[in-house]
Formats: sequence, structure tokens, C-alpha cells
Amino acid sequence: MKNKYILKIRINDVFLSKFTNKMQFIINTTDDKSSARAGTITTDHGIIETPIFMPVGTVGAVKAVHIKSVKDEIKAQIILGNTYHLYLRPGVEVLEAAGGIHRFNGWEKPVLTDSGGFQVFSLSHKRKIKPEEGVWFQSHIDGSRHLFSPEKVIDIERIIGADIMMAFDECTPYPCEFDYAKNSMLITHNWLERCITRFNQTEPKYGYRQTLFPIVQGSVFKDLRIKSAEFIASMNCEGNAIGGVSVGEPTELMYEMTDICCQILPKDKPRYLMGVGTPANILENIAMGIDMFDCVMPTRNGRNGMIFTWEGVLNMRNEKWKFDFTPLDKNSDLIADQEYTRAYLRHLYTANEMLGPMIGSLHNLHFYLDLIKTARLKIQEGTFTQWKNQIIPKISQRL
Amino acid sequence: MKNKYILKIRINDVFLSKFTNKMQFIINTTDDKSSARAGTITTDHGIIETPIFMPVGTVGAVKAVHIKSVKDEIKAQIILGNTYHLYLRPGVEVLEAAGGIHRFNGWEKPVLTDSGGFQVFSLSHKRKIKPEEGVWFQSHIDGSRHLFSPEKVIDIERIIGADIMMAFDECTPYPCEFDYAKNSMLITHNWLERCITRFNQTEPKYGYRQTLFPIVQGSVFKDLRIKSAEFIASMNCEGNAIGGVSVGEPTELMYEMTDICCQILPKDKPRYLMGVGTPANILENIAMGIDMFDCVMPTRNGRNGMIFTWEGVLNMRNEKWKFDFTPLDKNSDLIADQEYTRAYLRHLYTANEMLGPMIGSLHNLHFYLDLIKTARLKIQEGTFTQWKNQIIPKISQRL
Repeated sequence: MKNKYILKIRINDVFLSKFTNKMQFIINTTDDKSSARAGTITTDHGIIETPIFMPVGTVGAVKAVHIKSVKDEIKAQIILGNTYHLYLRPGVEVLEAAGGIHRFNGWEKPVLTDSGGFQVFSLSHKRKIKPEEGVWFQSHIDGSRHLFSPEKVIDIERIIGADIMMAFDECTPYPCEFDYAKNSMLITHNWLERCITRFNQTEPKYGYRQTLFPIVQGSVFKDLRIKSAEFIASMNCEGNAIGGVSVGEPTELMYEMTDICCQILPKDKPRYLMGVGTPANILENIAMGIDMFDCVMPTRNGRNGMIFTWEGVLNMRNEKWKFDFTPLDKNSDLIADQEYTRAYLRHLYTANEMLGPMIGSLHNLHFYLDLIKTARLKIQEGTFTQWKNQIIPKISQRL
Repeated sequence: MKNKYILKIRINDVFLSKFTNKMQFIINTTDDKSSARAGTITTDHGIIETPIFMPVGTVGAVKAVHIKSVKDEIKAQIILGNTYHLYLRPGVEVLEAAGGIHRFNGWEKPVLTDSGGFQVFSLSHKRKIKPEEGVWFQSHIDGSRHLFSPEKVIDIERIIGADIMMAFDECTPYPCEFDYAKNSMLITHNWLERCITRFNQTEPKYGYRQTLFPIVQGSVFKDLRIKSAEFIASMNCEGNAIGGVSVGEPTELMYEMTDICCQILPKDKPRYLMGVGTPANILENIAMGIDMFDCVMPTRNGRNGMIFTWEGVLNMRNEKWKFDFTPLDKNSDLIADQEYTRAYLRHLYTANEMLGPMIGSLHNLHFYLDLIKTARLKIQEGTFTQWKNQIIPKISQRL
């Protein structure tokens, strides 16, 4: 009965969203003691239960994990692709010929594309910002020269065919001077207006809806974050993001900036905190009203042998696991966590076997999704804040 | 009804094999037009249907493939481990504490361990053969000095706990002079006697049976191969192997040597051709009476983007697949072959994404197992030779 009821609600969501031609965001529960909320986002590729973590699929593949496992084992509801990477490889001709990213990689659920602002800033060579134009950069792969303008990025994201497209921003580095941050923020705002114009002038290519999220910048300066959040909010997009965090600033500053932005960004729209973070970061930011997260940490750390669990963080290369023949994670329902032992996984990392990073990535992503699913449940049960404060010291400790 | 009958036969096999305390090899069908045969080998970890291909699990892990996939997707019946690698990492203390390789890596089906003769020859540094002792070598990992003697190798294989242990041999390089090959062969024969003595003096450690296979050497010299095969046959082991092939010699010479050896090695025992080979090599050697194969080709080539199919060999890095959105292999029942397209796989290799080698390894191993299972079926149907001659040009062509 319960399942039927949920199914009915979902069908209604989808119906409603088709009818209004908008992405639907419904808040089901709000937490009494924090700004956390549990909700659902409805896209043409399915429903996303928020708060949600989005595995990073840089070039259209979640590193070291089969697409089927992302769906069936990790149970991801949405994955992220990178416009910068997908533009360079496989390129827009291939993506367009395929019929968009979902048909290209076989992932049938929602996709969000990062706009490339962060990658142009962190990866490419000889970056040159010409605000009226965009950014000229050299590919990190072959040194070839390219221009990303707000218009071009929107065109590329239309071709990639993500359900949620991010506006093209200038990702402010940390640390930076107030004047640099202010100027950078103004460029982002100007580019956003151009992105919105282009978005409104163009249509989705593959018959399903796409939406555009703008990005708050402003580095660690309160005044700028307030200005930026107000500007972003005034654009009245279907969801909003906070960028320029998790770029090296102290955690407390990140929390402060999130809090400031969340107080301004509209409550009735999903809020996405870009590139964050550790399990503790995620729970603290949920408490401030964030609904969506992405981060390379579970996959990158998984490749390096750092394993997140409900008991704490394990460095699998450590000698201490050498004779530990217990399952990798006894608290998990992931088959790999029961079938592989800690001693075996340590051996795989030590011997540089690909299976080590494969298990680590699968496990960590499964843990992140399990963590955020549990957070959602606790919000619905009304025990989120208490649970969060109890669990954070435990999951953050090094074992 | 048919399944029940097969089950009954299998239970009887296991019963019989327990009763006699020997590995059982039963030949079910022999081919009229060749020396091919279809049979079953019964071990305490289950039945192996021959001819069989054994995926290589060098350090106790099949590269880039989850253990569960080796079992459920590739449907491997036996995997191979390397004594040299397992001895260096994780080391015998770990393997013994785990209770043997099956409990260490979670693979519950049969395991065969290569003795390390080939790796000492191909991987280690400053190798020094002292026939009376064994081989002194330096680890390729940290340069540490070790001795492999026939006795020590048997002791290590007892600890690893493989169902089928290989005798310690001197793998003769190619090309080499007759005198070198002869001397090398004599060392192998002498070491075999020491291996058998040690094997008979020791007991399995984990409550299930282990058996020892000797290895024919003799390079590409007919006289030596005949002498060696006769000597090996006279040892009356439960199965026999042919080594020192696939080391750079022309394919025709490999076939000639296999043929000579198979005519001498007893018909009623499994014959294992070590380190072979391409799909065509496997079918031709089955025709000469080989029952067991192992080779790194499906995984190594899979990592590099070379894909074996029933239609021929695909180089996935080739530009020609860029816009090919058809399934990787439409003739396969592997989920990955249906869910991933050629264009997507090409993209993954081009972008150096780990998922590329993961898909390639999974696919190629599945193809090898499918190939050999089909060969077995054709032997049983009495159409093996005709089928083999038809199929070889097709599967060998470059697409």
C-alpha cells in the first residue's frame, strides 16, 4: 500500500511538472532545530530525493564504477558531468550525434552539468578573461585554444542535454583580495544575464526539459556573498547554487558563507553547494538548508585507499589491516562491503591492483549516498540535528 | 529432468573423487576429426568443464574485474594465481592467516597456481640459477633477495592453497641454443623429482585436496620435447602441462610442439598449455588435445583497447568507432556488451578513463569463456573441426 501511495504521488509530481513545464521542487519536511529540509525534485528523467549527493562523472563516466553499479549498487539518483571535459572529449559532435549524454553513456536518470567555470580556472593553461567575450584558454590535453563565452557554454550544455545546466561563472580563487573578488563576482553576474538570455532564446534538443541554475560567488567576503545571493535570487531561476567554496578556505568560513547565502536564496527552490565535501561538511551544510551536493572526494579518496564508514575513516594502505579478515564494512548492504575483507583490500592497494580503486570508489560513493539518505530520513523523523551532532565525531575520526 | 540428471552425475563425481582421494578427470566426448575432447575435472572446490580457459588473477585478483563479476558475468570456473607474486605480496603469513587464497579473495571455485618459474625468468632481477639449490633472484618490487627452490615453491603453494599446484620449472627463453635448452630441461626434470618428493611429504593445510601438475619443457626442439614429455608422463601425476611456449616463437612451432607433447602425454589426464594465447591459438590447440589454457591476453589487451568478438578484433581507440552508437557486442549476453556502445567505449579509452579498461577486460574474458564453452559444445555435437575452421578466419580478422 505504502509503495502504491508513493508511486501515485510521484506520478502526480511528474504530471504536474509536465503540465507546468517547470522542474518541480516540493519540500516534504522541514527540520525544527535547523534549516534542513527533505524534498523531491522532479525532472523528465525522474525524481531526485533531496538532500542528495551527486556522484561526479567528469567525462560522462563515474571513475572506476560501472554505470549499472552507479544505478543498482550505489543507487545514485543524479550524476554530474563537466562541460569543460565533455566539450574537449568526446566533443559536441559526438554528443549531439548520440542524442545527448543520457543516450551516450546509458545513464537514464537525471544529469547536471557543471558549466566549466571551475575547470577553466583549475585545469586549463594560459587562461585569459575578456569579460565582454568570455575566457580564452588552452586545453590541458593538447594545448589547443578555445573560447568559453556564456552563450557558447549554454549552447554546449544544450547539446550535452543535462537536465540541470549550470550558468557560466568565474570561479574566484582563494585567497584573493576584496577587489579581485568583487570584480570576479560582477563578471559572474554579467555572464549570468547573458546565460539566461541565451537559455531563453534556445530550446532543448532532445524533447525533455532542461533548467538553468545560477551560481553565487563572492569568495569569503560577507558583503559580496550577500550582494551576490540577492542578485542570484532576483533572477528567479528554478534552483540556485553556491560556488567558489571548497577551494582552500577554512571550513568555518565555508559554513559562514553557506549560511549567509541560504538565508537569502529562496526557500522554495533547491540549493546546490558546489564541490562539497567531507561527510561532516555535507551534514553541516544540510543543516543550513543545502539540498544538493557533489564532490570528487569519495571517488578520488577511494582511488587512494581512504575509505569512509559509519565508524570513521580508514586508510587502507595502513599496516594495521594486514591481518584483518573481517568484511570491509559490516554496516553496509553493499555486496562488495561484505564480500571483500580489509586485509584483501589493503593487499590490492599495496600491490597497485586496479581492483583496489574500483572497490574504494564503489564503497565510498555507496557510503555517501547512504549517509545522505539517512540524513533525509532523520529530517523526516524530526531527529536530524541530534543525530547529526552525535554522528559527526564518529564518522570524522581516523581508525 | 536434464538438469537433475547432470546434477546427479556431478554429485557422483564429487563422491567418487572424495572416495578415491584423487582429482577426477572424465572425458565425456572425443572428436572424430581431431584430438579434441570434452570432459570434466572434479576438485574439492567444484567441477571444471573442459576445455577451459582460466582468467589470470596474478596477485589473487583478476585485473579490473570484480570477483563477483568473474563468477556471475564471466562465469569463470577456475582462476589462476601466481606463486611469485603472491609470495611477494601479500606474502605467505597473510595467506596462511587468511586460511588460503579462496578465503583471502573470496573466490570459492578452483584455483591453479603457477609455480613462479616464468615470473622469476621474466620479471625478477639478477636471477642466478644454482641447480642444486634453486634460483636466487631479486624482487622486482623492492630489490630484496629471495631463493625459490623446488621444496620452497611446494611449501608456498601449500600455503596459498591452490587446488592445482604447478611444479617449479626453469622456463626456457626463446630463442636459445640446443645445449641451453637441453640443460634447462634437465634442471626442470630434476626439480620436478624434488617437487614430487616434497609434495608427497606434505599435506594440504586447509582440509581440501591439492594436486601437482608437472611441466614439459624443451623449447622448440622436437627431440627435447619428446624426451621431456616422456619423462613428465612417467611421473604419473594427475594432470600435465606444457610450458615454455608463447615466449616469442612462431605460432607454427608452438603448434608443432603442442602436437608432439600431446601425442605422448597420457590421454586420460588433463593437459594444460601454459600462457596461450589468441582465440585462434586456443581453438587449434584444443584440436591437438589441450584441455586447459590461461593467458593475460584478454585482460592485457582489454586494458589497451583491443576487443575480441565473434566478428573479429576491434581496436577501440580507432577513430572509426567515434560515431558508432551500436552496442559493444550485439552477439553477447553480457550486460555490459549491450549497455555500452562502441562510441562510448572509444571515448573512455581516449580519455584514459578507468572504466574503459574495466569494460574491455570484462568483455574479453567473457568472450574467451564463451568461445571455449562453444568449442566444448561443438565437440559434444561432433562438429568441432568444421566449426573451428570456419570460425578462425572470422574471429582473427581486424575490424
